[in-house]
Amino acid sequence: MESDFHVKPEIRVLGIDDSALINEKIMIVGTVFRGGDWMDGVLRSEITRDGLDATEVISRMAKESKHYGQLRVIMLDGVTYGGFNVVDIVKLHEETGLPVIVVMRSYPDFEKIKAALKHFPDGEERWNIIEKAGKIEKVVTRNRENPVYIQKKGIGLKSAEKIVRLTAIRSNIPEPLRVAHLIATGIILGESRGKA
Amino acid sequence: MESDFHVKPEIRVLGIDDSALINEKIMIVGTVFRGGDWMDGVLRSEITRDGLDATEVISRMAKESKHYGQLRVIMLDGVTYGGFNVVDIVKLHEETGLPVIVVMRSYPDFEKIKAALKHFPDGEERWNIIEKAGKIEKVVTRNRENPVYIQKKGIGLKSAEKIVRLTAIRSNIPEPLRVAHLIATGIILGESRGKA
Repeated sequence: MESDFHVKPEIRVLGIDDSALINEKIMIVGTVFRGGDWMDGVLRSEITRDGLDATEVISRMAKESKHYGQLRVIMLDGVTYGGFNVVDIVKLHEETGLPVIVVMRSYPDFEKIKAALKHFPDGEERWNIIEKAGKIEKVVTRNRENPVYIQKKGIGLKSAEKIVRLTAIRSNIPEPLRVAHLIATGIILGESRGKA
Repeated sequence: MESDFHVKPEIRVLGIDDSALINEKIMIVGTVFRGGDWMDGVLRSEITRDGLDATEVISRMAKESKHYGQLRVIMLDGVTYGGFNVVDIVKLHEETGLPVIVVMRSYPDFEKIKAALKHFPDGEERWNIIEKAGKIEKVVTRNRENPVYIQKKGIGLKSAEKIVRLTAIRSNIPEPLRVAHLIATGIILGESRGKA
């Protein structure tokens, strides 16, 4: 089902980002937002650098949270976390029962990704998971010169676009992802930095 | 100087909270907010449980941050961090050059604090630091039944009240402290909880 639905201004969104590649275990941070306005909660877990456990860890993180019953969508910052730990958004959608929106700051360089995956014995499996994320759509949020690119599962394009625009109140990146990034880098490095 | 000044809606506030008392080293989290609206950054450091390094660590955290030049006020969640690691707000104000506002969810129980400090060989020194935080004032933010209590250094009462009210947009607790609490508990415990 890729149906559209009514998007409330206070829709609960779980946004996930990872931290710097310092150790074998990579911290991932989840923020629970009401629309783009308020953060209601913070979740933390670990995935294995270049492992294949991101899908299961994120799924468990969502389902074990006290906010699970209120969550309406999971937002990811691309599908590769902690190096090349690829998230299977079809499986994540099935396991959590929640729509998944993948947000990217630029159109992914698939040739580069494919080349990097050649160094993995299971590179083909990882490539198949990346392909499962499906069609990439451009979405303009706060300014035309700085669009984002999205993929989705379990939600129609119109609703996905609406949620991305609703939550991108501060920059072109939705608040749940922008803030998860600030937390993940701040906690690991001592001060947040970077792309948001 | 306890002077009042013009408070801009986007005034940069550094809010500090600590995490659960699990280890000897206690994580403290700083959030850099623009008024009550947006988080611009996250800082992380460590203090010693029941130590006396909180003042210096928080001062260094503020001064070493890339946001230091923009910061206009430091907000604390009470003056005892990481057990009974008391913050000297007079010294914190002098060292950072920034006004300090201490926010408390309820009027402090000084008899209880005094009794606990008797177990410390330097309990009197700690008590003197607590007393230096000065007069406690009641401030009503979002609802009359749930006021907060504040102490301050380097800022007039009117400006301090204005900043507390401006930033308490979500609950009776200013956003920089509410969000620092969510981050500190979420990162250490796996999911945020509690008082905010």
